[in-house]
Amino acid sequence: MVKQERAARTRESLIQAAAKAFDSAGFDGTSLGRVSAGAGISMGALTFHFRTKADLADAVQLRGVSLTRDAVKQVICSRTAELETVVAITLALVGLLEESTVVRAAARLSRERAATSVPWPSSWVPVVEDLLDRVPEQDLRPGTDPGVLLSLVSHLVTGAEVHIRNDIRSAEKKRTRTVAQVAEIWDIALLGVFPALRVP
Amino acid sequence: MVKQERAARTRESLIQAAAKAFDSAGFDGTSLGRVSAGAGISMGALTFHFRTKADLADAVQLRGVSLTRDAVKQVICSRTAELETVVAITLALVGLLEESTVVRAAARLSRERAATSVPWPSSWVPVVEDLLDRVPEQDLRPGTDPGVLLSLVSHLVTGAEVHIRNDIRSAEKKRTRTVAQVAEIWDIALLGVFPALRVP
Repeated sequence: MVKQERAARTRESLIQAAAKAFDSAGFDGTSLGRVSAGAGISMGALTFHFRTKADLADAVQLRGVSLTRDAVKQVICSRTAELETVVAITLALVGLLEESTVVRAAARLSRERAATSVPWPSSWVPVVEDLLDRVPEQDLRPGTDPGVLLSLVSHLVTGAEVHIRNDIRSAEKKRTRTVAQVAEIWDIALLGVFPALRVP
Repeated sequence: MVKQERAARTRESLIQAAAKAFDSAGFDGTSLGRVSAGAGISMGALTFHFRTKADLADAVQLRGVSLTRDAVKQVICSRTAELETVVAITLALVGLLEESTVVRAAARLSRERAATSVPWPSSWVPVVEDLLDRVPEQDLRPGTDPGVLLSLVSHLVTGAEVHIRNDIRSAEKKRTRTVAQVAEIWDIALLGVFPALRVP
């Protein structure tokens, strides 16, 4: 039992150290040696748990996708209006990217490893697509294409991901700002940049 | 003379091959050997022109920044209204990222090489900031923060950059779509998602 717990703890440390390395250096830029050193765990123990770098990346991606799915599910359960839920999911995703190295690494790895079985966007894109399809007509300005709203969400999430990673790299300063910033962008997108008079 | 032209052509091939490698694999993921093979130019000739990988990256970044500055200048000269110019610059940047491997590589490298002297955003952020500061009050819905509009532009440009790179990696399909997509996102942001009735 104690042995099993120790093994689980080692596995967890390796996943966290791998996420940190993959997030900042990408799949190609990460070596098992770097992960082993980062976790303070011997190469022997590392390769006992994860035979290859791909196995390690798979574990990080699976974890990131599952964390994201849980967060999205939670938002859906606490909201009713579709458009409001889409905004809340965007903010939850940006919040996760800000707080969780594993989620950030999963987002990056799913781009870098095309052959991967669990692309990170699969944990939220279908949900957002479905919600956008079900927004009642009277909630949207006539002519608003739900597909364009999905692109907006997607660019905001990717833009936030890259900016957060960049901020962390440049020095551990000014965090928790990105969620507020994306919330303000959504406010502008919902109400429009143009003053009311110019809205047809 | 002929010798000088040949040298210039070699240099140019090296910059293009380096841009391709840096764009898809990043700074750490790129080796001089890969650039030499990609350009069909010997390692000897390569190191005659560029002593180190950093020199090569500097050349790609300088070129990308200068291409971007020219494009931004051209948009500014052909427009008058500030907000319209900001939208046009966003679309010009996304168009450049779509068409120019050098610009895409410069955008990526300037994040990966923090110590670099020419960050890519310096070729357009100050211009957009200045334009947003000068948008006449009556052109904006009251309460619209120009800083948030800069964040929107920044997320759209980064989101587009990452998506374009991803599309190219996954197969040379569906290009030239991103500019149109970002134009549609801007339309929505300018007019608002909510129907006119809900605009205060």
